[in-house]
Amino acid sequence: MSAFRSIEWKNDRLYLLDQRQLPAETTYCEYTDYPAVAQAIQTMVVRGAPAIGVTAAFGLVLAAFQSTAATVDGFLAEIQSAGEHLIAARPTAVNLSWAIAHLLKIAQNIDTHTAAHAESDTAAIDSLKQTLLAEAQALYQADIDACKQLGTYAQTLIPDSATVIHHCNTGSLAAVDYGTALGIIRVAHEQGKQIHVFLDETRPRLQGASLSAYEMKAYGIPHTVIVDGASGYVMSTRAVDACLVGCDRVAANGDVANKIGTYNLALVAHAHNVPFYVACPTSTLDMTLASGQEINIEERADTEITQVKGQQITPDNTPVFNPAFDVTPAKYVSAIITEKGIIYPPYEQNLKALMTNG
Amino acid sequence: MSAFRSIEWKNDRLYLLDQRQLPAETTYCEYTDYPAVAQAIQTMVVRGAPAIGVTAAFGLVLAAFQSTAATVDGFLAEIQSAGEHLIAARPTAVNLSWAIAHLLKIAQNIDTHTAAHAESDTAAIDSLKQTLLAEAQALYQADIDACKQLGTYAQTLIPDSATVIHHCNTGSLAAVDYGTALGIIRVAHEQGKQIHVFLDETRPRLQGASLSAYEMKAYGIPHTVIVDGASGYVMSTRAVDACLVGCDRVAANGDVANKIGTYNLALVAHAHNVPFYVACPTSTLDMTLASGQEINIEERADTEITQVKGQQITPDNTPVFNPAFDVTPAKYVSAIITEKGIIYPPYEQNLKALMTNG
Repeated sequence: MSAFRSIEWKNDRLYLLDQRQLPAETTYCEYTDYPAVAQAIQTMVVRGAPAIGVTAAFGLVLAAFQSTAATVDGFLAEIQSAGEHLIAARPTAVNLSWAIAHLLKIAQNIDTHTAAHAESDTAAIDSLKQTLLAEAQALYQADIDACKQLGTYAQTLIPDSATVIHHCNTGSLAAVDYGTALGIIRVAHEQGKQIHVFLDETRPRLQGASLSAYEMKAYGIPHTVIVDGASGYVMSTRAVDACLVGCDRVAANGDVANKIGTYNLALVAHAHNVPFYVACPTSTLDMTLASGQEINIEERADTEITQVKGQQITPDNTPVFNPAFDVTPAKYVSAIITEKGIIYPPYEQNLKALMTNG
Repeated sequence: MSAFRSIEWKNDRLYLLDQRQLPAETTYCEYTDYPAVAQAIQTMVVRGAPAIGVTAAFGLVLAAFQSTAATVDGFLAEIQSAGEHLIAARPTAVNLSWAIAHLLKIAQNIDTHTAAHAESDTAAIDSLKQTLLAEAQALYQADIDACKQLGTYAQTLIPDSATVIHHCNTGSLAAVDYGTALGIIRVAHEQGKQIHVFLDETRPRLQGASLSAYEMKAYGIPHTVIVDGASGYVMSTRAVDACLVGCDRVAANGDVANKIGTYNLALVAHAHNVPFYVACPTSTLDMTLASGQEINIEERADTEITQVKGQQITPDNTPVFNPAFDVTPAKYVSAIITEKGIIYPPYEQNLKALMTNG
């Protein structure tokens, strides 16, 4: 268990560790209504594809608890609307819409059954509320299990003494616990492997310098922060065994959307013949998109670039372009590591087989 | 002529625009002794390979003016020592040692001649001081001429409507005027070309976001600041005609040392078949080094990474690795643009021919 949790549900309330304040302060924000949860996702109180999926699920539970609908149909319409509101908070990570769709589907499927047996709409709605909460809690636990499982599977790819490069933050803070790429590093460390991780600082929001360094320090894992532009120099001057990243959405052909800078790192790794591994739970796979070109890439506020910690670094009114993610074509991805196993190229075929049989 | 000069010599004093304060403040620092000039180079009051070459030359002039040596030999020993002090300020850019060596050689060569004709050592030393000043001023003018000339030669490579990506700062602030890569962009703009430049912000010191954006704004050249990790996304989503960078040292085989992040950009450009051009005066060519592996790469203070504008972004005591430069192998360099012409591969042969016949 982690020294900290990014997400906690207690006494019908959602608590989120405010990641914008890390590493300086460890502050939890309390949420009792879903629009505030959507806002927290949008402003990145919580971030990381798995984490925002689970957060959105609890956001939907809050919407259910808030509901004063008198009929089951009215209740379902309300949570449908709340789900759409939550999905709109951030467009790129599919885990968010996946979690919402998962919960809504369950609510809709049990509706008829529940309604038929319930003595009243009120009782049926109460039952639905408890079901949604139980499902959100199940997603919460499933995320922990998936991350641990993929972290364990990945160990066949990680030598006993390993130097790796990591981008953004993909640890406990990006999920419920363990995380994806940093979860692999944590499992390696727990297994007694000598692992050293170079952390891309990850501009503009510096998740690597702040969040990943915070986690590695907490777990006692040897680490070194570098600027994003230094990965090529690191690879050309020392032996690097792998690059490890998480992801926000994988298309059916294996193209990967992840934090801006991931694609550059993949190209640098490719030039150095360093394996480039992408780690994610299968909830990040989006088989509805043929390729990464169809992934909606979020653009965020100019101030993420023009200011750092409130200090302006550019001249006034400097034009900026701030895509939050990029797309790494499948040909630069050595393997995709999931809780159902490690997937290798050809991805179109192997991802389809995984999702059909897995 | 530029709206601002990074370096000015007036009334036997050196004035440097304090680039650490830009874009917020335009402050000139005054220098009357050479150790302070070495310190200014080390702390990056002034930076950019051509600019620190010219600055060091004036630093040596200040050392000469400071000298109270009674004999010509004593004087020469003093400026030799001062030259070594200045060269030690920063190791990677060859322009610094080149400029010092150039001035010392002139002083040594005219020593015998001057001493023979001077009525006294004092008169000979006074004459040497004036010669050194005249030579430093000649380097100052030569830098302007070289930058304008290479900017003009480069236009055959720049389409009438061009989108380019640029790393670090290579403009007026990095030289005496015009600069190298940004000088090419400025000449293109002056010639009426429709040029748009994406400026890598260039962590850790953010020369792109601060200095290059400041210059482009001053010259009215359309520009957009991006984080260093976004260049691949820019190249994959829009037509980019070229990457343009400066450099700090070119080895005899065409390997190029330049600001950290340059190598990553070169690899990204290579993957996209975008030409990668390096611009520099021939004083940046170091034919004494067989390859880039022999170039001394400066490592700078951790705080350049752990803090931005005095705000800490990492946990306390986070280990960092902060190389100030990287080396781009010649095979990723499409052409080297100098004031003596554009050099194409094979560089070993063509650089040698340039330096022998040029």
